[in-house]
Amino acid sequence: MKKGRLLTGDRPTGKLHLGHYVGTLANRVRLQEEYDCFFLVADYHLLTTRLDQLEEIEQNIRDVVLDNLSVGIDPDRSTIFLQSAVPQVPELQLIFSMLVSVPRLQRVPTLKEMMRDLHITQPSAGLLSYPVLQAADILSVCGEIVPVGKDQASHLEVTREIARRFNEVFAPVFPEPETLIGEVGTLPGTDGKAKMSKSIGNVIYLSDDRETVTQRVMRMYTDPRRIHPTDPGTVEGNPVFIYHDAFNANKAEVEDLKDRYRAGRVGDVEVKKRLADALNAFLDPIRERRRRFAERPEYVEEIIVEGSRRARAEAQETLERAKEAMKMAYYRGVRHRA
Amino acid sequence: MKKGRLLTGDRPTGKLHLGHYVGTLANRVRLQEEYDCFFLVADYHLLTTRLDQLEEIEQNIRDVVLDNLSVGIDPDRSTIFLQSAVPQVPELQLIFSMLVSVPRLQRVPTLKEMMRDLHITQPSAGLLSYPVLQAADILSVCGEIVPVGKDQASHLEVTREIARRFNEVFAPVFPEPETLIGEVGTLPGTDGKAKMSKSIGNVIYLSDDRETVTQRVMRMYTDPRRIHPTDPGTVEGNPVFIYHDAFNANKAEVEDLKDRYRAGRVGDVEVKKRLADALNAFLDPIRERRRRFAERPEYVEEIIVEGSRRARAEAQETLERAKEAMKMAYYRGVRHRA
Repeated sequence: MKKGRLLTGDRPTGKLHLGHYVGTLANRVRLQEEYDCFFLVADYHLLTTRLDQLEEIEQNIRDVVLDNLSVGIDPDRSTIFLQSAVPQVPELQLIFSMLVSVPRLQRVPTLKEMMRDLHITQPSAGLLSYPVLQAADILSVCGEIVPVGKDQASHLEVTREIARRFNEVFAPVFPEPETLIGEVGTLPGTDGKAKMSKSIGNVIYLSDDRETVTQRVMRMYTDPRRIHPTDPGTVEGNPVFIYHDAFNANKAEVEDLKDRYRAGRVGDVEVKKRLADALNAFLDPIRERRRRFAERPEYVEEIIVEGSRRARAEAQETLERAKEAMKMAYYRGVRHRA
Repeated sequence: MKKGRLLTGDRPTGKLHLGHYVGTLANRVRLQEEYDCFFLVADYHLLTTRLDQLEEIEQNIRDVVLDNLSVGIDPDRSTIFLQSAVPQVPELQLIFSMLVSVPRLQRVPTLKEMMRDLHITQPSAGLLSYPVLQAADILSVCGEIVPVGKDQASHLEVTREIARRFNEVFAPVFPEPETLIGEVGTLPGTDGKAKMSKSIGNVIYLSDDRETVTQRVMRMYTDPRRIHPTDPGTVEGNPVFIYHDAFNANKAEVEDLKDRYRAGRVGDVEVKKRLADALNAFLDPIRERRRRFAERPEYVEEIIVEGSRRARAEAQETLERAKEAMKMAYYRGVRHRA
């Protein structure tokens, strides 16, 4: 008996990296044991900020799905679906847009952050309504649990308000989803910057081969005040050790390296070589799963098609219950007669 | 060979009245000779301002369709369709919402008017995006001609901007629709107020019976300075004569009445009786058509179902072309596999 329905997802902006793994993917793999999981590939969300960069969207969708499958999302247990393949989502968004005010959306902190980061002075109506589309994503399949980073809690707040308001104005149709804040937060970039980011190039992809991973690790940023292997080094906040903690399965080795690093009894090169080995050992089963899925593109396609079919059936049922509550369930046959 | 595709429609707020006839319906009946007409029953638009008054929406939809059929809209020649039966409309609205900025929508004059008239201090996201939904209505069926009142020209301006911007950013998919300003404008209420309005009760419905029409006409507002039938009266701006001009087919009678009214040689009662007769003569064939359609509710339903099916097929083609232009025409099969 699973605990409830969970929804989370990715904007298909490209291949996923170790930062995504630590931030969400590891969590997902665990969560699919406990919850009925829906994983959304949010292609319409991409339009809010990348309208002029859609050439690679189709490839990005395949990459994102392949990355999810490679880390261990099980398509027999979880539902992977494509946002633009569920027309009930924009229809619910339209309905929900009547239940939230413009000033409320303007107060969502992430809107201001996105505008600042992307140098947008005038938001599009679509960008302003980003949290309403997110509400439609979640509520279309009656998601009850949404694992989020701390900076996304305000987005879910809008979803909860919309669900509550709909239920008050019409009838109780929607759950008020709860957030589930993951244990592990963020992973710094290989350059020591706060986040891995494709545009900065401080990234190790889940799909990188052994050689690429080793090269990137050997160039990683460590304690900048340490000149010689005999200098006592700082472990805390040192990206190389953060990665060791996150990915090296041999905890005794990690403790030993930390002790020697602090005492000036190990060089950065050795610490990095051990990390490269550990990372490759961690990535090897992921690579192996990727290889098996990549060999059968028609099966990956079928996973998306089948997941979208399931999401669409759920969303249609939800939409019908919403329309019923709104006294708009007339001409029910209209939509189904082709 | 018809001149092009025309779209217009009604929000299903209730039965239509003589003001609607003069403002749009008369025009529609003429236009269906020349254009490939799509008549929209805009039920989703109703949510922008009447979220808490949806109990009668289903009846209102039937009334609006029956009113359109009664005045002579020919379902074999024109397409009557229901907005909420075309899921491609909200999907196009979502796409279009990325192409128009919030400040641009805040500048639409009708938004301010609606907020003032309805005492709304904080518009909902849906109310702000009203013109974007309207753009989706029109462009979903590639409407080229939109007959509008002068106060709606700014709404169509947003549609034109969205079409232009989509075509620039992606590829030429949408026409830039043109407005068609109708010859006749507005009809005052029976109380002489600027507009017929259900809430004021100064209305004659197209579905009113002979007796009701006669009663309402006999209570109409005329020249307030005229006390006796022998006082010279004012014809200009006098609602009774405005109605005579609009509905009395006997132009000689109207001229004669005007002359005698100005000269103080006819009483208000006679002028009104003649108007009641003229209005009933005008409404009789409308009543007859209404009776015939009302006798066959399953046929009226079939008109809505069939029209919506046609609109949906057109909208699906449009949406596919839009997605193609956006490089989002992947997983084409996904949506069609139930």
